[in-house]
Parts: sequence; C-alpha cells; structure tokens
Amino acid sequence: MKLWSKENSSTSALVEQFTVGRDKEFDLLLAKYDVQGSIAHVTMLGEVGLMTKEEADKAVAGLKEIAATIDHSQFTIDEGIEDVHSQVEFLLTQKVGDIGKKIHSGRSRNDQVAVDIKLYLRAEISNIKDEVKNLFDLLIKTGNEHKNTLLPGYTHLQIAMPSSVGLWLGAYAESLVDDLELLAAAYQVANKNPLGSGAGYGSSFPLNRKRTTELLQFGTLNWNSVYAQMSRGKTEKVTGIGMSSVAATLSKLAMDCCLYMNQNFGFISFPDELTTGSSIMPHKKNPDVFELIRAKCNRIQSIPNELTLLINNLPSGYHRDMQLTKEILFPSIEELKACLQLMQLMLSNMKVKENILTDEKYKYLFSVEAVNDLVNKGVPFREAYQQVGNSINKGEFEYDLQQLHHTHEGSIGNLCSEEITAEMNKVLAKF
Amino acid sequence: MKLWSKENSSTSALVEQFTVGRDKEFDLLLAKYDVQGSIAHVTMLGEVGLMTKEEADKAVAGLKEIAATIDHSQFTIDEGIEDVHSQVEFLLTQKVGDIGKKIHSGRSRNDQVAVDIKLYLRAEISNIKDEVKNLFDLLIKTGNEHKNTLLPGYTHLQIAMPSSVGLWLGAYAESLVDDLELLAAAYQVANKNPLGSGAGYGSSFPLNRKRTTELLQFGTLNWNSVYAQMSRGKTEKVTGIGMSSVAATLSKLAMDCCLYMNQNFGFISFPDELTTGSSIMPHKKNPDVFELIRAKCNRIQSIPNELTLLINNLPSGYHRDMQLTKEILFPSIEELKACLQLMQLMLSNMKVKENILTDEKYKYLFSVEAVNDLVNKGVPFREAYQQVGNSINKGEFEYDLQQLHHTHEGSIGNLCSEEITAEMNKVLAKF
Amino acid sequence: MKLWSKENSSTSALVEQFTVGRDKEFDLLLAKYDVQGSIAHVTMLGEVGLMTKEEADKAVAGLKEIAATIDHSQFTIDEGIEDVHSQVEFLLTQKVGDIGKKIHSGRSRNDQVAVDIKLYLRAEISNIKDEVKNLFDLLIKTGNEHKNTLLPGYTHLQIAMPSSVGLWLGAYAESLVDDLELLAAAYQVANKNPLGSGAGYGSSFPLNRKRTTELLQFGTLNWNSVYAQMSRGKTEKVTGIGMSSVAATLSKLAMDCCLYMNQNFGFISFPDELTTGSSIMPHKKNPDVFELIRAKCNRIQSIPNELTLLINNLPSGYHRDMQLTKEILFPSIEELKACLQLMQLMLSNMKVKENILTDEKYKYLFSVEAVNDLVNKGVPFREAYQQVGNSINKGEFEYDLQQLHHTHEGSIGNLCSEEITAEMNKVLAKF
Amino acid sequence: MKLWSKENSSTSALVEQFTVGRDKEFDLLLAKYDVQGSIAHVTMLGEVGLMTKEEADKAVAGLKEIAATIDHSQFTIDEGIEDVHSQVEFLLTQKVGDIGKKIHSGRSRNDQVAVDIKLYLRAEISNIKDEVKNLFDLLIKTGNEHKNTLLPGYTHLQIAMPSSVGLWLGAYAESLVDDLELLAAAYQVANKNPLGSGAGYGSSFPLNRKRTTELLQFGTLNWNSVYAQMSRGKTEKVTGIGMSSVAATLSKLAMDCCLYMNQNFGFISFPDELTTGSSIMPHKKNPDVFELIRAKCNRIQSIPNELTLLINNLPSGYHRDMQLTKEILFPSIEELKACLQLMQLMLSNMKVKENILTDEKYKYLFSVEAVNDLVNKGVPFREAYQQVGNSINKGEFEYDLQQLHHTHEGSIGNLCSEEITAEMNKVLAKF
Repeated sequence: MKLWSKENSSTSALVEQFTVGRDKEFDLLLAKYDVQGSIAHVTMLGEVGLMTKEEADKAVAGLKEIAATIDHSQFTIDEGIEDVHSQVEFLLTQKVGDIGKKIHSGRSRNDQVAVDIKLYLRAEISNIKDEVKNLFDLLIKTGNEHKNTLLPGYTHLQIAMPSSVGLWLGAYAESLVDDLELLAAAYQVANKNPLGSGAGYGSSFPLNRKRTTELLQFGTLNWNSVYAQMSRGKTEKVTGIGMSSVAATLSKLAMDCCLYMNQNFGFISFPDELTTGSSIMPHKKNPDVFELIRAKCNRIQSIPNELTLLINNLPSGYHRDMQLTKEILFPSIEELKACLQLMQLMLSNMKVKENILTDEKYKYLFSVEAVNDLVNKGVPFREAYQQVGNSINKGEFEYDLQQLHHTHEGSIGNLCSEEITAEMNKVLAKF
Repeated sequence: MKLWSKENSSTSALVEQFTVGRDKEFDLLLAKYDVQGSIAHVTMLGEVGLMTKEEADKAVAGLKEIAATIDHSQFTIDEGIEDVHSQVEFLLTQKVGDIGKKIHSGRSRNDQVAVDIKLYLRAEISNIKDEVKNLFDLLIKTGNEHKNTLLPGYTHLQIAMPSSVGLWLGAYAESLVDDLELLAAAYQVANKNPLGSGAGYGSSFPLNRKRTTELLQFGTLNWNSVYAQMSRGKTEKVTGIGMSSVAATLSKLAMDCCLYMNQNFGFISFPDELTTGSSIMPHKKNPDVFELIRAKCNRIQSIPNELTLLINNLPSGYHRDMQLTKEILFPSIEELKACLQLMQLMLSNMKVKENILTDEKYKYLFSVEAVNDLVNKGVPFREAYQQVGNSINKGEFEYDLQQLHHTHEGSIGNLCSEEITAEMNKVLAKF
Repeated sequence: MKLWSKENSSTSALVEQFTVGRDKEFDLLLAKYDVQGSIAHVTMLGEVGLMTKEEADKAVAGLKEIAATIDHSQFTIDEGIEDVHSQVEFLLTQKVGDIGKKIHSGRSRNDQVAVDIKLYLRAEISNIKDEVKNLFDLLIKTGNEHKNTLLPGYTHLQIAMPSSVGLWLGAYAESLVDDLELLAAAYQVANKNPLGSGAGYGSSFPLNRKRTTELLQFGTLNWNSVYAQMSRGKTEKVTGIGMSSVAATLSKLAMDCCLYMNQNFGFISFPDELTTGSSIMPHKKNPDVFELIRAKCNRIQSIPNELTLLINNLPSGYHRDMQLTKEILFPSIEELKACLQLMQLMLSNMKVKENILTDEKYKYLFSVEAVNDLVNKGVPFREAYQQVGNSINKGEFEYDLQQLHHTHEGSIGNLCSEEITAEMNKVLAKF
Repeated sequence: MKLWSKENSSTSALVEQFTVGRDKEFDLLLAKYDVQGSIAHVTMLGEVGLMTKEEADKAVAGLKEIAATIDHSQFTIDEGIEDVHSQVEFLLTQKVGDIGKKIHSGRSRNDQVAVDIKLYLRAEISNIKDEVKNLFDLLIKTGNEHKNTLLPGYTHLQIAMPSSVGLWLGAYAESLVDDLELLAAAYQVANKNPLGSGAGYGSSFPLNRKRTTELLQFGTLNWNSVYAQMSRGKTEKVTGIGMSSVAATLSKLAMDCCLYMNQNFGFISFPDELTTGSSIMPHKKNPDVFELIRAKCNRIQSIPNELTLLINNLPSGYHRDMQLTKEILFPSIEELKACLQLMQLMLSNMKVKENILTDEKYKYLFSVEAVNDLVNKGVPFREAYQQVGNSINKGEFEYDLQQLHHTHEGSIGNLCSEEITAEMNKVLAKF
C-alpha cells in the first residue's frame, strides 16, 4: 500500500514495476540513515510541541530498536512495501502504534530522502577519504624505498630524461592531495541539512531546523527550502566529481602499471596469484587487476556527465527523475573503495627490475645533463644544445650515469616526501 | 577452476571477486547465443576435420540439449564456475565426455565472447526496432485521430503559431524514422561474424570462417582478425548510439507531456491509475511515468560517452577493460524496451482537452496568418508585418480562428502520415 | 538593422553582442548554401504564383550573381548586418529592388537556416567520406605491401601471438568500413528538406515543398513541419556521431603509432621533417602529429555529448539555444578532414623496422602455435596447453619462426584485402 | 624559427600548420603571465648564481618593459614566431642581447607553459568568483524586495505548494555558495607552482623552487616534478569543473526564467530592449538572452568531460595532446563571465506580475495547509490527508490565502538571507 493512495484509485502493476525499478536495492543502503534522520526529526517534533514529549520518547525508542536490526544486518524491505521509508514507518507503527504515524508531521518524502542521501554520502565520502589516505601512505613509503631506483622518464612517450621509481610513485601520492580538494568540496556540499524543507517549499508547521541540524551533526543547513530540494541531484553530482578525481589518478596509475608490466618495458612485475592467464596462451601473465581498476575508474569518471544529463534543463522543483541518481552513483561508491584497496594490494606486491638504465637504448636520457654540464662550463645554452645534438646525430654521444646529481625540490635526488605529506594533512583537515 | 590455471598458481579470492564482478549476471543473457555460437563452431570443426564427423554430431546434440534448458529458463551458472562459457563446456563434458573439451580447438575466449555479444545485440536491436515500430504506429494513428485538434505552437517557449495534436504527434513519429537510421547502422555493425579471430590474431588451424558466418546467418564477416577484436567495445558503443537516438526522441516527447500536463498548459490528462500522488499533497496527480521515461532515456543517452571513456586511448589488442561493456550496455536494453512500452501505454490512455485555442491568451498565434492575409491582398511582407505588429502593440489585434487554412505538405491541414509511413518502411527494410 | 525590429524598440548593444556571438564567422560557411536554398524557394514561389514569373526570374538571376561572388571568395558580411541571410537579402535588394524583399514570403528564418545547415552538412559529410576512402585505400595498399612483415601481437598489452604489419593496418581499413555505416546514417538524416516548415508550424501559403526538394536534390522531405524544426540540433548531432566514429578509429591508430614509435617498441619511424624536437633535449624526435591527431579526434568524440547537453530536455519548438550547434560542430569538420589528410601524409612516409620478431623476448608469441602443433599430433588441447606452459615455466620453450602457417580468412597469411574492399564499396554506395 | 630546430632538419609547412593550430590566439591571453613567470625565474637564477646579479637585473628590467607593452595592449606575436614564449624571448634578446638567451637555463617549455596557465587560471578563477559574488548580492537583494510576492511552487511540474519570488531567487543565491566550494577547490589546485619541474623530471641545475613560489605568490609548490607535469590538463579540468558548477546554476535559473516568461505562466517580463522579435511573427518578445545563457552554460558543462576524453588513458609524462586544453577551456572563461553579467542585467530589469495566486487554478496550492490545519486541530495526519483529498475530488476545496503562515528557517516567511550571506562569506574566504 502506498501512503498516497486515494479513494477509488489504483496504480497498474506495470506502472508500479516501471516506477519502482531497482530502487529497493539502493534503499537498503539508506536504511541506517533514514532512522537517524527520523530520530532527529521526532526529537525536534517533541521539543516544539508537534508531538508530546512522551510520544516522541516512545517513537525514538522504537526507532533505536530498528536501528539495531539494521546494524545487525537483519533489516529487509518486505514484499508489498514500497520503499525503505515505508518499511521503517511500518515497523515503527507495529512497535508503538499510532504514534508511528505522527512522525510524518512536518516532513515530506522529499526532504526525508534528501537527508538520508546527505547522511549516506557524507559517511561514504569520509570512507573514501580514509582509503585514499591509506593508498597515499603506501605510495610515499614505497616511493621512499625506491628513491634510488632509476627509471627512464618519457615525454611524448619518447625516452626523455632520467626519472626514478620514487619520483614516479611520489607523483601519484601528490596527485591524491589535489583530488582530495574536490572530495573535500563534496564533503562540504553533503554536510548540510535539508530536513525541514518539505517538498521544496517548507511547511506551515513551526519546525526547528537548526535543532535537527545539530542533532545530525551537520555543518550547517541548506537554509532555503527551494535550494534544499535543488541540492538533490547536485549533491550526488558533486560527490561523483570528487570520486572521479580520485578515479582519474587511479586510472592513470593503472595505465602506467600495464605499460611498465609490458615486456617491452619490463620495469615491474607481480606474483602469479595477482595476475591472470589466457585460455589459449600458456605463457601469459596478464595485468587484469590493473586493467579493471582502469576500466572501473574510467566508468566512474563518466558519472558527473551522466548525472548532468539527468538533471540538466529541468526547471526548479522536484522531479521524479531524481530517483535515478541512486542507481547511477551508489554502486560506484563500492567500486571506488574496492579499486583503492586492490591498488594497495598490487603495489604492496610489486617487484621492480634492477639496473633498468644500463640498457643501451636509455643513454640518450642523459643528453640534457650533457647540455647542462657544458652550460655549467660557460657554453651558452643554445650552443651546448647544438653541440650535444650533433654528437647524438653522429652516434658519438656517451654519458656516465654516475654524474647524475638532481637536488632541487621535487627532483630525483630530493623527493620532498615530507612536504607532500604535509600538504596531504592540510587537505585532510578540511573533512 | 579456471581454464587457464597453471601448475603452482592460484589467484587470491580478493582478486577473483574484483575481476569477476557482476559478470555472471550479464552472462546469463548470453547463454542462448553462446550455445548457438558453439554449435556453429563445432559443425565447422567437423567439416574441416578438426573433429571427426561423429564427434561433432555428438557435441552438437549435447549443445542442443543445453539450448533447450536455456529456452525453458532452467539454465544457471553453478557456484564455482567462472562464467557462462565454462558452464556450457562443463555441462557438455558431462553429456559427451572428452569430446566436450575439443570444442575449444581453434577458438579463444575472446572470439567466443565476441560472437555471443554480436548475436545477442543483433537480436536485441531487432527487438527494439519492433517496439519502435509499434510506437510509431500508435503515434500515426493517434495523430490522425487528432488532426483537427488545434494546439498552440511555441517557439522560444513563447506562443507562436497554431499547431495541432496531429502535427505534434506526427513529428515524433517522423523522429523515430531518423532514429532507426542509426539503429540500422548498429544492426549492420553487429551483423558481422568475429568467430575464428581467436584472441585477435587468428589461428594456425585451417578454420572455415565463411561457413560459421553462414551457419549463424551473419550478413558478412569481421574479416580481419585484429579488427574482429577491435570491434569489441565498438559494437556495443554503436548499439548504444542507436539506442540513444531512440531514447532522445522518447525523452523529448516525455518532456512535452510533462509540460502539457502541467496545469498552466493543461492540454492533456491521464487516468488516475497512470499517475501518482504525493505523500503530503492530496490534490496531486503526478506524471511519474513520463518523468521516469525521460530520466531513463537521458541515462541511456549517456552510454555512448561512457563506453568511449572505457575504450578510448587504448592501443589495439584486447584489454580486460572490455568486460565492463556488458554492465554498461546490457541493463539499458531492457530499460529502453520498457520505456517504449510504457510510452505506448500512456499515449493509448491520453485524454486531450477540447477547444484549447479559444482561450484569449492564444489569439496572437494568428498574427502570422493576419500578415499573410495582407500579403495575399498585395501588401508587401515588411509592411504587413509592421501593420500587424502595431495593432498588437495597441491591443487591437483580432483574428477569426475559422480562417485557418494550411495546406502544404506537413502542415496542420496536411499531415502526410502516409508519406511518413512510407519513409518508415524504407528504413525498416534495412534491418 | 534587424528584420524584426519594431516601432519604439531597440536592443541594447550588450545584448546584441551576447546574442550574436561568433555566429557571423560560421555563417560564412553557409553563404553558398543560403543562396542555393533561396534560388529553390524563389523558383517555387514563382511557380505557385506567390511571385510573378518575371519577379522570380529576376530574383534568381540576382541570387546567381551573389553565388558567383561567394564562389570567388568575395563575399563578406558587412558591419551592421546581422547575419548571412540578411546580407544576401540586402545585396539582392540592391540588385533587384523591392522584389528582393518578397523572397521572404512563406519562409521563416528558422527553415531558412535549417535548409542551409542540411545542405552544408550533406556536402561536408560527402567530403569527409571521400577522405576516408583515400585513407582506406592507403591502408589497404600499405598493408598489402607489408603482409609478410611480422609484428608481435599483444593482448592485455602483453606479448601474445604473431601478428603482421599487414594485419595491423588492414584492421584499421576495415574499421573505417563500419565507421562509414554511421556516417551514411548521418547522410540520410541530412539529406532531407526542411524548407517550407516555417518556424516549425508550416505556413498558410500554398507552398510546394516537393518542388524545392527536387530543386535542391534532397533525397526526401522532412515531411512534418514540427519535425523539420526538431531535426535542427539532431542533424548536427547525428553528423557529429558519424564524424566521431571516424575520429575514434584515427585516434586509436594514432595511439598505436605513438606506442610503436616509442624506443621500447621501435617498430616504426618517420623522417625528421615529420617529427618535432624538444627545447631542452637534443635527441628527441617526437610524434607530435600523431599526438595531435589523437587529441583532435578525442575532442571530436566529445561533440555528440556536447550537443546532447545543448538540446536535451528542451520541449519541442525552436529555442535560440540551437544557434550554438554551429560553433560546436562546424570547426571540427575542418579538423577531421585535416586529421584524415595528415594521417595519410604520415603513413605514406612510415618506415617499418625489419626482422622485429628475431628479438629473444618475442619467442613466447609462438606458444599457441606449439600447443596447436601438439593438438594436430593428437594431444588433447588441455594437455597440450599444460605441456607447453610447463616448458615455458622451466625456461625450455623454443619455436621455429618458419613453421608459421596461418591460412584462414583474416589471418596473417590471408588478409582478405579484396573482401574488405568489397565491403567498403557496399557502404560507399549508401551515400 | 623554432628553438629546437636541428642541423639538416626542417618541418614541413603542412605539419607546422596542423601542429600550431589556433594556439597563438590563446597564447596572447598568457603573455602577461609568461612575463611574470620569467621575471620570477630570472630573479631566482640571479640569486642561485646561474646568472650574474647584473645579468639578472638587466633581464628583469627588459621583461618589465615587455610587461608594460602587454598592459597597454601593444603586444602581438609576430609572423614567423612560433608562440608567445618565443616572442617574449625574441623581444628580450632585442633589448638585452645574449643575456636574453640565458633565461632558458633550468627551464623547459613544459614548465614554462604550465606556470603561465596556472597564473592565468588563478587570476580568472578569481575574476569569476567576483562576478558570482555580484550576482549573489543581486539575487539576495531582489529576493528580499520580493519576499512577500507569492508564486506557485511546483513539484513534478505540477502545482504543489505556495512559494514566493523571494524564496525562488534566494535558492539560486544559496546554490552559488555550493558552486563556489568547487571553484575554491579549483583555486587551490591552480595556486601551486610547477616552475622548476622542467619537462617533468626536474633539472640538474640547483634551482630554488621555493623562491619562485614566493615571488609568484603561489600558495605552495607542485612539489614532485612528475606531478607538476601531470597537473597539466588536470588543473584545466578542475577549473572547468568549478566553472561548470556555476554554469549549472545559471542554466537552471535561465530555464526557470524562460518558463516563467512563457504566457501560460506569465510570472515575469522584461523590457522590449532585452527581448528579441521574430522575422515572421510580429507579436513575439523572445527570451533569447536567457536561452543563450542556458545554451552557453550547458556548453560549459560539457568541458570537464571533453577534457577527460583528451587526457584520459594517457600514461604519465607530457604528451602534445595537452596543447588542446587551451582551446577547450579558455574561450569558455570569457563566456561564463559574460553569462554572469548578462544574468545580472536581466534580473535588474525583471518585472514581476502582481497577485499571481489569485487565479483560480492555484487554489490547490493550499491543500497541504488545509491538511496541516486539521492536524493542528488534532486530526491524525493520514485522516486529514484523506479528508482534504476527498474534498478536492468532489470539487469542494476552498482555502483562504490570508491564513498562510510559514515561519521556519528557509520558508516563505523566513528567507534567512543573512544566514545565506554568512555562508557565502565563509566560502569566499577560501580564495
């Protein structure tokens, strides 16, 4: 039975199936937060006199019992119940009778869903941030361990200048710092209370929205009721943007790893149990984990655009279209956390080849060094450049690897891992 | 157990879970086509001598039994079996013993999956085309019934010139004709046989690829083995493009319907059982079906870009990334068919308001007619335009609705439904 | 002066600048087609009696004079003239006096622009198709020349099985065949006449739309006037889709070339004048042309989504938003043609390294051959696979390159270039 | 002449044209920042001894003269000069001789461009932020002025509950606050110094990167040289994300305005000089400015995806593909500022219709109030809902507009403009 069913009206089963879609599946993720939101709402209703103190206490107690079943993974949405909100109300009414029905006062399904989603996303953004920090720490640690392991550095995918495993991994660590700027912005947008905005135009009940904000530990309110509603879809999109930024970094790192595992590069390798074979080629050790991290992270990067297509060019006010934000965004949250974890699993087991640069083909990496050496001896840069260029063209270029001495901030000889970690801590403080 | 497991190697459970993902779910959709592909492959193997005639006959008979269980929805992928292909091979080996293992000769998992997907998409493109035709017929029929029901026509969302329900619905019918051009292109791309291309570099076995093409009733081959592999991802994307084109038309029609149901327009209405109510507003009759058609079709429109992000900038050759094309594309096929059906359900039950144009605010719709009347009387267009403009500015403009006479092709008085139907039949012939 | 300026009204300069934007720049591309459309319209007006025969003849003569100035690149849009359409009308009125003003009868700016764009896109789609054919021919020819030059084939970017330069280039040739299916769909959509649909609701004048269709050599009409208008934006998008498909193939080929030019692969090289250097590294020969083909083609691939964002969720009827389709699509047409030409320039100058596969690291390419050899000797596939796998793990695997014999359709030994060319000719016949 | 031209090599003119593209056009925007970057670099070179103090002083003096010509719009890139960087170097060498050539020491074209772009984007992000603040102030002011002007509130585009012009405009003000969270994240990402990272692998010169950071007033460094390079493309994308967020708000407000200007709504109107007419309909007053704000802002929303397509799946290290970020992002910066200004122009001239809600069709807006009134009298919510629903179905529903009393935070009677302004000030402090 639907809350809004009227006399003499019934909705066809076909319409029901089409409109409900996969919603129940995602609603389960919201159950915990739906109860949290209801406890705050009921507490406030009791305080402003829209329920008696006794009614509110009973309702809160009933809701806490439901919260416990959710915590113990015993909560389900029954057959014939429309959604998580109806299920919670149904269970509550079983526990506390007619009081259970009163908790809908001064609240619409719209602001109820909105607050659930904000609470859920705030929690998950925080979880993602924690996994990003774990990966960051691993990158810094592994980079430091390999600070003296030289790698060829490429530009235009052509052999360019000497790099190192430490410099390579440190770059991805620092990339995560910038990614967290966007995730922190998403956190700010999610950390605002829409409860009390009703269907987007507020209510004639004397609600105390600051009180529910405090009870739910939101940073502040979505003050304007129309905006609180407009924030639906937008909050999901901003979360998707923050996630996409992290995903872009993972995808690029995965691409590098696929390339470096390729036998023509051969810089890194992984144990058999972390690679996969081929059904027809017995020699294969494929980087499926990296390929799927890349693929899943590329899929995540499509989410902001997908949500824009969903919400764009709609006039203000709620539209049912918003329902789909859940199926677009929610599964990708689990995917991103898994990608962050698998990347850690892989990097923890990475083996780096030794003495990579001794291969003849890498000697041109040092042409800039040779130019700079001449410059240091007083030759103007342009002349030095021409001179080294000519020796290369004539096949006469040689350079001694031992002469390498990069010392400035962020170069091979000076990774600045501590400074990068300090930047990470600064952005972590924004959550 | 995996086909490619080697001595002394095992894949960690975590990696297994991450790499398999939701794949089994989508594999079930491919089961029917996997068996079809195997029957064709085995038949050919028997003919070219890679299996004996007797072995091939037994294998085909076993595969046909498996096909029957799929047709009766009794096929599942067992716990511990990696995918649909292994399940079919496992069942076949149970039925016909070691012969079952021979069917893998001259075939890789890559071309096996590729042919399954081609067969599946070819069938589903055809199903979508059939539903598009059904909607087209309904639009033409309903448009003809309402050919004399006038509507305001808007440009810039401003009242512009007289239109009609017939003209409005006929436009969407004709839109579907152009959409099918893209869907027909997708059909052509899907209707090519990749079987025999192995892992993308062919095989040293003397396969007869033309024979399997014939047996599977493909239009032609993906001739080049490297291209056959490259077509993975691309075929899915082209299918997504064809679907997106249909989806764009549905989305726009749904937007119009939401607007025309709005009380400020009020042109159309629907029975209670096809609309939904509000949890707090007892007067609401919401167009949720149209909103969800719009939303789902907007989501479908994001698929080509999502697939581009997945497959772009990858060098040639198979990458595991391709696995995700299934979870991106396949669910949307069912969604699009449902949208096409629900749109028919809604339009079949649409009630159009009578005498819409008698409302005072619509009289300016006829300003062009007034200008044209003056032109017909010999007044130059620019002068006529100024004259009518002035009468409007002075509030003196009047026009008699009865004078309306649009006769040219595709105007209110001449819908050209037969000509549009002829165009539809021309494009249908391309499938 | 604007056509629609009314008594006592003036538009602020700021608004003018904002609304006109970069439009004049793109309008110049339409000039030729604007005159063609006007000639057809005027001819028809003369035939149906909306102009006298003499008036029509004079107007057509004047328009032909303007066409000549366009052909000689002497046409410009004067300062103070709003757009190409006003400029043509202005010039015509200078030539033939008041008759020039009559050509606006039974036509709106909307259908005038729509027909210009259809004519322009139809011509440019055809130009792109011609360049695609040129590249196709080069790929087939170069592939045939290199049919015996072996390359390593990769899956998962891991060394997999033997391939060849012929197979590699042939794949891209065949890819273009499928791309042209989408471009042909775009051609069909563009090749329909919207003229006579007015502002999207037709006209009360007795226009003969079939006649202008014939005069402009369109395949058929956009029959329904509302659809003719709806086709604006959609035609541009479908063209963008066809172009994107070609662009995706070019981008992938460019990616391969960048990889194969990389020194770790080193399969191909190009003369100095087709590569670029570095400001600090004198040894660099960078593949900038391929990188920019890739980049420009990736940008082109974003166009369909960009146009979807522009036109999506707008109700039916013209909106000014459509103006931006020009600046989104038109510049990319020139870019795509340039990319097709530069790709030909590069491939014509490509040098392929000899005896690539003699390098030790490529010997595992032949593990499948070794397995198949055992199978041919009667060993079951699974056993053969295990046996070869073990010899690889023990470092004992060897294979004689000379034993290679791939004969089936689309394999190294049988490129099927003629069959692929036949497929190309089939799709070319659709334009 | 190109910096990197070598003995015996010349680049073909065709390649030159293709690779340079439209780059010079955008380079002019960077000229000012290129000189700033060079001044900082040279100053540092002088301090660390890579130039003498005297040389550095002369070079700085010369650069300041060039800066002055840029400030006076007298700077151009000469025919035959490749880009802005070469032009500056050329001019400098004219002024100070060979010293001008030394400023390239310890710097690559890559980090030079990177720092130019960071400085440019940082400045423009700040400019956009200022215009957002101006629009915010106008929305708050106009909203306050209209806080008692009631509007219908819609959900599902159906008449729902009472709203007001104050609530409507205040929502968009608050939306801008959340948008600035993302723009502030972009500011953080842009406000980091890549100078000294060379071609992405640092330098063997003893550069002092902290010193240039200080001189250019960057918040901090892109520490890791590989990351400094990786930040190219990413910085542009994050800026595009921040801009897109503002654009989404503008687009939605423009959509509302188009709808509210439509005669079926008729809530707002604008003076003739801010609307446009039709070439065939003399009564039209079209909202072209709003349509083009919507269109341009929808185009801007496509930028993050376009940049993702450009930079995605590229391995680490510079690729020439990056060049296109300029033509994708830079023009949209001017567009967004224009949209922000035009929105202000329009809203400053908006006229709101009086007594909108007295129209009979809006009475159902008050059904929730009626339900709540009953609830306040002790009727359980569900019963009250059924009771009011029945009175509506029987056509007996009436409600007195005067009874309206919404008092909670963010409702019609309590806009919380001060609290929203406080939130704006909090986010402004992040720039």
